[in-house]
Amino acid sequence: MSTGHPPPLSATARTSLGRKRDRGRTDRAELHAVLDEGRVCHLGVVVDGAPRVLPTAYGRDGDTLYLHGSSGASSLLAAPTGEICVTVTHLDALVLARSANNHSMNYRSAMIYGVPRRVTDDAEKLHGLRAVVEHITPGRWDVIRAPNRKELASTAVLALSLDEASVKMRGGQVVDEPEDYALDVWAGLVPVHQTYGVPVPDPALRPGLPVPGHILATFPTG
Amino acid sequence: MSTGHPPPLSATARTSLGRKRDRGRTDRAELHAVLDEGRVCHLGVVVDGAPRVLPTAYGRDGDTLYLHGSSGASSLLAAPTGEICVTVTHLDALVLARSANNHSMNYRSAMIYGVPRRVTDDAEKLHGLRAVVEHITPGRWDVIRAPNRKELASTAVLALSLDEASVKMRGGQVVDEPEDYALDVWAGLVPVHQTYGVPVPDPALRPGLPVPGHILATFPTG
Repeated sequence: MSTGHPPPLSATARTSLGRKRDRGRTDRAELHAVLDEGRVCHLGVVVDGAPRVLPTAYGRDGDTLYLHGSSGASSLLAAPTGEICVTVTHLDALVLARSANNHSMNYRSAMIYGVPRRVTDDAEKLHGLRAVVEHITPGRWDVIRAPNRKELASTAVLALSLDEASVKMRGGQVVDEPEDYALDVWAGLVPVHQTYGVPVPDPALRPGLPVPGHILATFPTG
Repeated sequence: MSTGHPPPLSATARTSLGRKRDRGRTDRAELHAVLDEGRVCHLGVVVDGAPRVLPTAYGRDGDTLYLHGSSGASSLLAAPTGEICVTVTHLDALVLARSANNHSMNYRSAMIYGVPRRVTDDAEKLHGLRAVVEHITPGRWDVIRAPNRKELASTAVLALSLDEASVKMRGGQVVDEPEDYALDVWAGLVPVHQTYGVPVPDPALRPGLPVPGHILATFPTG
């Protein structure tokens, strides 16, 4: 039965929280929101049995995440073998408690698991790269030079379904042990923000090119 | 021969950059700087052959990184099997080029590889937890209630050597293809900053407790 709502997030063994279940979210819209606000994900792969975690860009189209990289032999994206994990994290506050044990952080994070599909069709590769560039700055793709044939050939694009994903969040204030509230220790939050500065033009910019509206719309500097 | 300088970073197959070698750094002080500025790392582990990437806190003491977590059965830190990878990333700017292909990000990242040592000695566990709390906010450990015996027993502490690590950075402006500089496309950087807001006291705070100096020193809100 379709309700017009997107399906809830899957519950698999690894997306079901073993601890602190109250921090889990099962709403697909919350997954999208965490992904859309991020700029960098951390991509986990297994190489020779050991994990590697790489910061990289990404884009989203519906319930597909796109990743890209060099198609060169040394790229980890060139020959994905098996599963990957993509994590996007926003740090919202440091949680400074009265006891060491209750120190924490407020955050929102999304973890996506799956075996990515290597995109080979040029049209879908362009579609995926468009998603990545538009994720960095919405509106950008239509004003820049698109990849040419050679650039496209040298770029690997991976598509990862958002089918298996989890979202975790911690919000709110310090939670201390009952007996610790009597201590003369300051407790509270230190908010953490990610902000964007005034755009810095390339010194080689052609004269008379103002910062375009699509950049100002996403990164207001007023 | 000791020169009084810390040893340079190791060069193993996975810490030697296959591509974009100019982005690599081999100075141990740069590794420490990237780690010390971060608050959250992304911990990569392998579970049933698949990668998992978790945001978590950490601390550093010299060339040892400390991680902590629940010692409960469902914690990934409870029974580390084999290697882990810890990555810390700072996003410094979005790099908006004239061509899709030259879009990039300015960043600094550190990746550490190794098999962590499970800390079992209570004194070293406290030492590791102190490193984690002091990393969140320097000066905090000495004003808060230290873990009691029960809290210490329920906490797993891992020590990871910084012996095998790499640092990567991209800085500077857009680099476009020679023929693209003639395009009427704005290009440049959008700086990205992580900032800290005014501390928010716990509403349950005892009256008359001001924000202490160790917090104001690290997070100036003026």
